[in-house]
Amino acid sequence: MTLVVQKFGGTSVANIDRIRHVAQRVAKTYDQGNDVVVILSAMAGVTDGLIELAQKAAEEPDKRELDVLLATGEQTTAALLAMMLQSMGYKAQSMLGHQAQVVTDCDYGNARILEIGAHRLLQLIEKHTIVVVAGFQGYDIKGNITTLGRGGSDTSAVAIAAATNADVCEIYTDVDGIYTADPNVCPKARKLKTITYDEMLNMASLGAKVLQIRSVGFAKKYDIPVHVRSSFNEEEGTMVVNEDSGMEQLVVSGVTHDKKQARVTITKVPDQPGVAAKVFSPISEAGIVVDMIIQNTRQGGKTDMTFTVPKLDFKRTMEISQKVAAQIGAEEVLGDTNIGMVSVIGVGMKNHAGVAAVMFNTLARDNINIIMIGTSEIRISCVIEEKYTELAVRVLHTAFGLDAEE
Amino acid sequence: MTLVVQKFGGTSVANIDRIRHVAQRVAKTYDQGNDVVVILSAMAGVTDGLIELAQKAAEEPDKRELDVLLATGEQTTAALLAMMLQSMGYKAQSMLGHQAQVVTDCDYGNARILEIGAHRLLQLIEKHTIVVVAGFQGYDIKGNITTLGRGGSDTSAVAIAAATNADVCEIYTDVDGIYTADPNVCPKARKLKTITYDEMLNMASLGAKVLQIRSVGFAKKYDIPVHVRSSFNEEEGTMVVNEDSGMEQLVVSGVTHDKKQARVTITKVPDQPGVAAKVFSPISEAGIVVDMIIQNTRQGGKTDMTFTVPKLDFKRTMEISQKVAAQIGAEEVLGDTNIGMVSVIGVGMKNHAGVAAVMFNTLARDNINIIMIGTSEIRISCVIEEKYTELAVRVLHTAFGLDAEE
Repeated sequence: MTLVVQKFGGTSVANIDRIRHVAQRVAKTYDQGNDVVVILSAMAGVTDGLIELAQKAAEEPDKRELDVLLATGEQTTAALLAMMLQSMGYKAQSMLGHQAQVVTDCDYGNARILEIGAHRLLQLIEKHTIVVVAGFQGYDIKGNITTLGRGGSDTSAVAIAAATNADVCEIYTDVDGIYTADPNVCPKARKLKTITYDEMLNMASLGAKVLQIRSVGFAKKYDIPVHVRSSFNEEEGTMVVNEDSGMEQLVVSGVTHDKKQARVTITKVPDQPGVAAKVFSPISEAGIVVDMIIQNTRQGGKTDMTFTVPKLDFKRTMEISQKVAAQIGAEEVLGDTNIGMVSVIGVGMKNHAGVAAVMFNTLARDNINIIMIGTSEIRISCVIEEKYTELAVRVLHTAFGLDAEE
Repeated sequence: MTLVVQKFGGTSVANIDRIRHVAQRVAKTYDQGNDVVVILSAMAGVTDGLIELAQKAAEEPDKRELDVLLATGEQTTAALLAMMLQSMGYKAQSMLGHQAQVVTDCDYGNARILEIGAHRLLQLIEKHTIVVVAGFQGYDIKGNITTLGRGGSDTSAVAIAAATNADVCEIYTDVDGIYTADPNVCPKARKLKTITYDEMLNMASLGAKVLQIRSVGFAKKYDIPVHVRSSFNEEEGTMVVNEDSGMEQLVVSGVTHDKKQARVTITKVPDQPGVAAKVFSPISEAGIVVDMIIQNTRQGGKTDMTFTVPKLDFKRTMEISQKVAAQIGAEEVLGDTNIGMVSVIGVGMKNHAGVAAVMFNTLARDNINIIMIGTSEIRISCVIEEKYTELAVRVLHTAFGLDAEE
């Protein structure tokens, strides 16, 4: 028999009617002759509501206790779906994180799954019981409840799919797959049939927030095919798979953009060993996530160092950077919140030298000036003036042959 | 050091402000040099809300899954109180039923505690950590979550007090102790300083719903002093203790009443072995709780059988009884919803023959006709016309010398 793991997010279980819809979907999959394990998030809004409640109880709620509180959200939906499936005549049973033996480290609020003791899950699956697992939660070696961070149910789903050797992990969400670009920005964007784990990893971190990035790493490690699809219709979504799984042979699979970054430049930094650490350690200690970092060697043992941070953290970053600049004897700190980032992503570009050239030429043709350039093995990102972001997405989408046919 | 177990009910943790009040109370007890274990109920109304939600999900929600759902209520309050105590600078930690190792049978919705593995509780107590245990919940031997039924947190508290060898179990509630009668009915009722477990057992089952009856049985078995007191003031409440613990020497400790019963009489039942089973088995199978049963032998091998059931179940009971009457060849079934029950309770009456006489004379003096009489070792109950119930409570309260001094 085929084993299908199905994960439904918060909007898919937002109320009793939506949960009933999920129950019907699960039942249908089961009736088609599959074993099914379901992973659920909390009802949309519930986790935020619980965080608010905690903040009323304590200014900085203890992290262990916050996880105990937050875990109730998924416990609720799991119990409701299980009783609903039973009332429809199906064998079903809920399992909480500790019952499904999802063992994590003890980093409350952002725990990582260490292993899953699939023994009890497999016992139920063998009896063809539909197992409904509360996502987002696990327990540490001492029996404390932990949660996996925002989007953690995706990781729960992929990890449980890996542990039970499932044939596919379906992620039901409110979008119907992965697109070549944001359809709101690029009307010609089209849904991809397949995408590689690596491309997805680059997509996710760039703002196409369909899957928790950690879950994609997990899926890649255990080679679990992940099917991203809509809980609102029956259409096929996008399969996230290994590179050699009969992919569409595209050089570039998608164009993403991000307007939430700001740029900081520290000029005339003495070019000495250890100076980068001196710049970035205090920023990282302040909990600010630096995305792109560019450094050009200049003459006279001085260099300019440029990096991007979330716009929300811009002011704090400027303050920290000014202190650091003074300490290390740099010249000055410049900042710019008026930027956008566009990226082209594709495993195909590894063997294709011309991608960067096509990208730069395309932007130049529309007089879009490139402020920064960053690359990874399968991604090229350009920082440009914010106002050109949408235009850049559209012209790149066309240039790389991604436009949907009319 | 003294170990105090404190249990707070739903009205005492109804919202963040009330929980803050509980935190202050717990902190005060701790600051006085005690170790403290706190047992919490869910916020008032939350359990009922969850049951409603479950009934929207399934007409007859599966009992296992319902317990998973209901357990979130106490999980929430336990986490909130623990984080609040921490933010006030106290060492505190929440424990769920399975973490506190409250092992029960697997009678979902009404599970009984089999044992408590106090090892982990005691470890925390030794470190002078305030432990906040989610009441009402446990787990069975297979790791399924169970709940203990209405008022189950009382039993959680007493059982944990027994397992940790606590010096006292304080039950904080919205009344300030046990009264000699319902003060709403009998203005001269006064608060008892002490009451025995046995008296409390008879009180609880007769409608003085301050403590879950099962918790009193537990307290008696392990000889745990239970202090019933108000969470709204600092006054001493009522101690529930063993008979030999220096009691007030009263013959009668209290007068209780119950207007929620109805009476059913089956006339001319053939007086044969097994006939009572034939009458009561179908009623019990329908989930109807029979309280008092009276049977007088009559001439000619026929007897009348009278019993009381909750008014809510009266109609169903009549229907079942009529079927049964036909089957066993009884004459007819009579019913009466217009009854009240008054009881006098006291361990003192065991050695005091005159109590029944005083009771019957007192009622007769006010022309209150007695319809049924039932007795236990420490209780005498009379069924009377409903309209006389309050009057009966007051005159009995005076007759047994219970009236508060002016």
